[in-house]
Amino acid sequence: MKLVLAVVQDKDVNRLQEALSEKEFKTTKLASSGGFLKEGNTTLMIGCEDDQVEVALEIIRDNCSQREQMVAPISPMGGNADSYIPRPVQVEVGGATVFVLPVDAFHKF
Amino acid sequence: MKLVLAVVQDKDVNRLQEALSEKEFKTTKLASSGGFLKEGNTTLMIGCEDDQVEVALEIIRDNCSQREQMVAPISPMGGNADSYIPRPVQVEVGGATVFVLPVDAFHKF
Amino acid sequence: MKLVLAVVQDKDVNRLQEALSEKEFKTTKLASSGGFLKEGNTTLMIGCEDDQVEVALEIIRDNCSQREQMVAPISPMGGNADSYIPRPVQVEVGGATVFVLPVDAFHKF
Ligand code: NI
Ligand code: NI
Ligand code: NI
Repeated sequence: MKLVLAVVQDKDVNRLQEALSEKEFKTTKLASSGGFLKEGNTTLMIGCEDDQVEVALEIIRDNCSQREQMVAPISPMGGNADSYIPRPVQVEVGGATVFVLPVDAFHKF
Repeated sequence: MKLVLAVVQDKDVNRLQEALSEKEFKTTKLASSGGFLKEGNTTLMIGCEDDQVEVALEIIRDNCSQREQMVAPISPMGGNADSYIPRPVQVEVGGATVFVLPVDAFHKF
Repeated sequence: MKLVLAVVQDKDVNRLQEALSEKEFKTTKLASSGGFLKEGNTTLMIGCEDDQVEVALEIIRDNCSQREQMVAPISPMGGNADSYIPRPVQVEVGGATVFVLPVDAFHKF
């Protein structure tokens, strides 16, 4: 048994939980913030059989990898709107920081 | 030293913390939700000497095991109230998912 | 790799995170409460290379050790204000409870 702790962005967590649940992984969300990732993250605890850890990691990678996204910029406040041509900018979103912890014993009551 | 992580239902957590505290276990609550148990759960971190793990597990089992409870059902909206005989229904409450983690070192400052 | 879990008082957590970040440690905050310390605490997860654990522990000790602080007492409600001489009282603040957990694998996606 392993305990996988995955710190992921809030925007990815629902999709990740659904993808894990489809493969029968059970998860619990811990409210978390800051640090490993930009603000707005969640830490998922995932209990895993040893031979399922690679499967869980692949699901996390598929759903949460850091990636670039084009976003429409906010038009500059007080600027000359006539001469301003909005240009989408690329930002990095997503990303996951994952710790696989050994488990001495696991119980369900 | 072990770190016991117990995901339990919110309704059981106060009674569990009191029972653990009576036996000198120290606990910290992490806000958590979803997954291992139905909505409304809390994750307790319990620091334990190796020879006290079984005692902690027994307290968790005694206070949080999944069990059945009779609850009065809500009367059906818009139904014929005259012919409706409310009958208590059995629901499952409680339950605990517990990970016992090895600890390399423990410090208090 | 180790995962350091530090339960510290809310009042110390910002200073601690800044001090850790200056030494390139990455941290994630988990919302927590009660138990190991008086109410109002936060659990920090700190991912550490094995040879950096002592450095992280020293930073935690330097920023969060339990210490005494003089505070002005609230004047007694309904007491005789004329005869009441406020005297600062010593209270204990801070403190950290730290678990160093072994890590089987660490990934960033
Ligand atoms: Ni195992
Ligand atoms: Ni031990
Ligand atoms: Ni290591």
